[in-house]
Amino acid sequence: MPHIPLEAHLPGITGLLEYRQDTAAPIRELTQILLRGESTLSEAERELIATLVSSRNQCRFCTAAHTAAANILLGETQTCAQVIDDFEQAELGEKMKALLAIAALAQQNGKNVTSTAIDRAKNAGATDREIHDTVLIAALFCLYNKYVDGLASVTPSEGAFYQKLGERITSNGYHRVPAVYEQLKKEQG
Amino acid sequence: MPHIPLEAHLPGITGLLEYRQDTAAPIRELTQILLRGESTLSEAERELIATLVSSRNQCRFCTAAHTAAANILLGETQTCAQVIDDFEQAELGEKMKALLAIAALAQQNGKNVTSTAIDRAKNAGATDREIHDTVLIAALFCLYNKYVDGLASVTPSEGAFYQKLGERITSNGYHRVPAVYEQLKKEQG
Repeated sequence: MPHIPLEAHLPGITGLLEYRQDTAAPIRELTQILLRGESTLSEAERELIATLVSSRNQCRFCTAAHTAAANILLGETQTCAQVIDDFEQAELGEKMKALLAIAALAQQNGKNVTSTAIDRAKNAGATDREIHDTVLIAALFCLYNKYVDGLASVTPSEGAFYQKLGERITSNGYHRVPAVYEQLKKEQG
Repeated sequence: MPHIPLEAHLPGITGLLEYRQDTAAPIRELTQILLRGESTLSEAERELIATLVSSRNQCRFCTAAHTAAANILLGETQTCAQVIDDFEQAELGEKMKALLAIAALAQQNGKNVTSTAIDRAKNAGATDREIHDTVLIAALFCLYNKYVDGLASVTPSEGAFYQKLGERITSNGYHRVPAVYEQLKKEQG
């Protein structure tokens, strides 16, 4: 049960973003810019960073939601599963592995991001902007994970829930779509 | 030296917020709403939560900046120093201690925020909204701390720097004030 009263038909982050919509708006905006805005990293690559960080924070809701999004964007489920299990062994290029390594270090503590980790990414062709965005995506998902679990929001167990959520965030992005909330309310009713 | 090129006259978070102003805008907006917007928690109380979390993340820049802000708002320096050292012994009421305890648990991991910690806060009179905001402030400062340290932004050592920064964020808030940036550039030049 959540630590504060949240709408029962809106599990995980969705109920929290409805609970206080004024703080939700800039959180959604930041996520939309970072994960869906113009970037030399693909949307799938950015979702993989979000998934890895959520997984390391043991946030089941965010891990399942962003795994679903990454899988839809990639058109397969193996890569994301490998990233969670051991990203160094995943079917990804060296640049992406180096960026995931930076995200994993930032998840522990910002200070853990060493010059060695940065040099590895730069040597593999990562730009300053890609390194910046990787750290900020990692930091943002630490915010999400702490928000979702710190208020004990509900984590559905059915895979179908996350598949639908993944479809929403890959097709609509992270902005609030009022029609989605009306539909969710109707489905519950 | 920062991991990416940042303006030398803008240490800590300020250079990062200038590096990518489109992502900075919602981060500033979220901070302004949470730390300066309407709340039953005073601005000083909210700065104490920010300081405690930054201190637990060992982020020297954010700890010094928000200590300066809290001290200015409180008109004394003892309380914030006690919060960093051992908040249970600080000269604060039980509600505030219970909220700081929640923030400290969220800093470790969202899952660590137990029902017992929440009950303590509720029994001391904390509202759902205060509990929500405490968790979100803790989560936001984990974002800041990871952003600031993950990109190795510069941490000035002079207390005078943080005193000026504390004065800016207590008088101007967290929105970008172009005149401040012009002044900082002039001071360096």
